[in-house]
Amino acid sequence: MQHWILPENISDVLPPEARRIEFLRRKLLDCCSRFGYELVMPPLLEYVESLFTLEDAALDLKTFKLTDQLSGRQMGLRADITPQVARIDAHLLNRHGVTRLCYAGSIVNTRPDGILSSREPLQVGAELYGHDGLTADVEIIELMHSCLKLAGVESIHLDVGHIGLFLALADEAELSGDLRQAIFNAMQKKNLPELATLTAHLPETIRKGITSLPQLYGGVGVLHDAARLLPDFPQIRSALSDLQLLSEALQLLGIEVFFDLAELRSGYYHTGLVFAAYAPGWSNAIARGGRYDRVGEKFGRPRPATGFSVDLKELAWKLPPPPARPAILSPDCIDPALIELTRSLRASGETVVVKLGDVMDVDELKADREIRQVADKWIVVPIDV
Amino acid sequence: MQHWILPENISDVLPPEARRIEFLRRKLLDCCSRFGYELVMPPLLEYVESLFTLEDAALDLKTFKLTDQLSGRQMGLRADITPQVARIDAHLLNRHGVTRLCYAGSIVNTRPDGILSSREPLQVGAELYGHDGLTADVEIIELMHSCLKLAGVESIHLDVGHIGLFLALADEAELSGDLRQAIFNAMQKKNLPELATLTAHLPETIRKGITSLPQLYGGVGVLHDAARLLPDFPQIRSALSDLQLLSEALQLLGIEVFFDLAELRSGYYHTGLVFAAYAPGWSNAIARGGRYDRVGEKFGRPRPATGFSVDLKELAWKLPPPPARPAILSPDCIDPALIELTRSLRASGETVVVKLGDVMDVDELKADREIRQVADKWIVVPIDV
Repeated sequence: MQHWILPENISDVLPPEARRIEFLRRKLLDCCSRFGYELVMPPLLEYVESLFTLEDAALDLKTFKLTDQLSGRQMGLRADITPQVARIDAHLLNRHGVTRLCYAGSIVNTRPDGILSSREPLQVGAELYGHDGLTADVEIIELMHSCLKLAGVESIHLDVGHIGLFLALADEAELSGDLRQAIFNAMQKKNLPELATLTAHLPETIRKGITSLPQLYGGVGVLHDAARLLPDFPQIRSALSDLQLLSEALQLLGIEVFFDLAELRSGYYHTGLVFAAYAPGWSNAIARGGRYDRVGEKFGRPRPATGFSVDLKELAWKLPPPPARPAILSPDCIDPALIELTRSLRASGETVVVKLGDVMDVDELKADREIRQVADKWIVVPIDV
Repeated sequence: MQHWILPENISDVLPPEARRIEFLRRKLLDCCSRFGYELVMPPLLEYVESLFTLEDAALDLKTFKLTDQLSGRQMGLRADITPQVARIDAHLLNRHGVTRLCYAGSIVNTRPDGILSSREPLQVGAELYGHDGLTADVEIIELMHSCLKLAGVESIHLDVGHIGLFLALADEAELSGDLRQAIFNAMQKKNLPELATLTAHLPETIRKGITSLPQLYGGVGVLHDAARLLPDFPQIRSALSDLQLLSEALQLLGIEVFFDLAELRSGYYHTGLVFAAYAPGWSNAIARGGRYDRVGEKFGRPRPATGFSVDLKELAWKLPPPPARPAILSPDCIDPALIELTRSLRASGETVVVKLGDVMDVDELKADREIRQVADKWIVVPIDV
C-alpha cells in the first residue's frame, strides 16, 4: 500500500503553484472589496437539504453525503458556494437594501467534471442581492472582467445569453419534466440532430425557435436574427431587449460582448441573463455567472440575485508566477546583534532564511544575498557565485 | 423544516468576522514567508490510510469517512493538516536539505473539542523538516511568537514541555498499551488522584517520577526540581538539557518561557519538545506545536520535523477589527466620465459602491464620501450628514 498516493482527480498544490493561487486569491478578493463586496465564509458541511436551493438532481449527485454524529441527520460536503451565500443573504443578514457578498473557498465534487478536472476546485465569487435591474448585472460582469484583467488574463472573450428565451419556448409548449430536461441537455451540448428529433412533434413556432437557439451565436447581429427567428412572445421580446441594453452598457465600459443564445449555464439555478468568459489557453470557461432570482425561495425569502464565480485552480495554472523578491540567507547562530538585524530585515518585508544543516539548495530559495560577520559587525552581502 | 439552520458547532462566518480572519490569514502567511516557509495546499479529502501518520485512534475518531465513487475506497475529510504536509515533504518534494512549509486551510472534526468549539477550525501552521537540532525548534517558536505578535495578541504566555520525560518513564517501566494510555490521559488532565491510583503498583522511582511531572510547572527553577525528582536516566537528562538550552536561546530572542513538564500535547504524533501559547482572554491555548520526528515513517521517509499551528477562527474573535478605509458612494448611472473616475478611484485602492435601489444603509458600508455631478463634472464630496 502506497500511503502517499492520492485519490484520482485530487491533488496537492505544491509551492510554486500555491504561491500563484494565493497571490490571485488576494487580488480577486481585494478587487471585490473595492466594489463594495463584503467577505463571507460559509461552512464546508451543512444539512443536505440546505445545500440545494431548488430541486436539483445534478448538484445532488455531485455532493458527498455524511452522517452527522451529533444529530443523526445527513450532511453534505458543499459542491457549490452560491446557494450558501443566498442562505446567508436571506436569513443571517436579512437586510432590506442591496447586499453585496463575496467568498473564496474549496468545494468538493463526487466525480470530476472532466478527465483532467480537479474534484476540489477553489471557488471564488461575488453575489449581488436585492436589485433586479440591469445595472446589477452590468456591475457583476464588470467586476468579473476586472478580476480577470487583474489576474493577468489577456483577450477575454465574453459570451452572454438569456435563460428566459428557452423558458418562454418551453413554457408556451407546456413541455413536461423529462422532455423539457432532455431538450435542455441537448441544447447545452448544441446537439442539433437530437434537438430536431426531440422537437419534431412540437408546434412549428416552438420547434423553429428551439432549433434556432444554438445557431444564434456571434456579434450584435444575432439579436436581429433572433427577433426574426423566434416567436414574438412578451418574455422573448423582454429578454432580447435586456441583452441589447446589457451589450450597450458594457460597450461603454469597454467590454465587448458576444451572444450565445443557447448558453444555459449549468442549469442549477439560473433564471435570466447568463454569461461565461473564455480566454486563449483555457478550453473551458474561466468564469461564469448570471441571474438566479428564485434562489432564496427555499429559505423563505426570494430576492433578486446575480453573481459570478471562478475556479482559482483552473485560472491560476496558465498565468505567469507572481513577482518574487530574492531571499537573504542567515547563518545558524543565536547572537543578539544578528537577531536584531534579522528582525529589522523581515519587518521591512525581506525574506531571511536561516541556513540549517549542511545541505542548502540556494537555487530553490532564490537567495541572492547573505548575512556575514565582518569585523564584528553583521552585514548583508551579495552571495558569491 | 427550517432550511437555514446549520448543524451544531458549524457556523457561517459573517462580514465583520470574515474580514478579521482574512486579515489575520494574510498577516500570518506573510510572516511565515518572510522566514522562508513555502506555501502548500493539501487536499480536503484523501484515502483514509494516508491521513494518519501513526496508529492514532483519537485522530481516527475525529475524521469523517466517505466512500470514493471512483475507486470504491474509503476517504477521510482531514481533521489535521500536519500529517498531509509531512507526506508532501516525504514524497512530493523529496528534498535532501531542510524544507520549510506553511499552510492555511479548513479542517473538519466529527465532534467538537468543547461545547463552544467549532467543528470546522481554520488551521494555519508552519513545519520545518530535515533538521533535528535545537535551532529548528527555536526558529519555529520564534515564528509562532512573531505571528501572534503581528496578529495583535498581547502578553503571550509560552509553556514548553518534553514528551521524552514521560516516554523515558513509561519505557523503563515497560508500560502496556492500555495502562500507558490511561496514565497518559490522566497526565494530560493533571488528574493527580487518578495518577496516584494508576501508578500505585509501579516501581517507586517510576511512580514518583510520573506523579511529579504534573507538579513541575513554572519558571526556570522547575528544571532543577525536575533533576532532583526524576530518575537520572540518559533520556531524562537529555530532555532536561534541551529544555534548558531552549529557554536560554529564547531568552536571547526576548521570549520568556515557562515549563510544564506534564504538557503532552494532544498525543497525536509528538515525540520531543512540545509547546503551547496562551493569552489573556482565551481559555485554551491559541497556538501549539512541537517535534514529531517519526511522522514521515509511514510514508517511507522518516525525517526530523518540528512545527506549530493555530486556529484562525479561535484566534480572530478576540482581536480588534482590522483598519478599514471608508467607502465612496457612486450614483447608479452609466456615463463614460463617471466610469473613468470610478476606475481610477478603485485603482488607487478606494472602495466605490454604486447606489442601487432606494434603500441604502450607508452606515453598514461605512461610506464617508460620494460622487456627485457638479457643473457637468463628476467630483468626490463628503456625505452630508
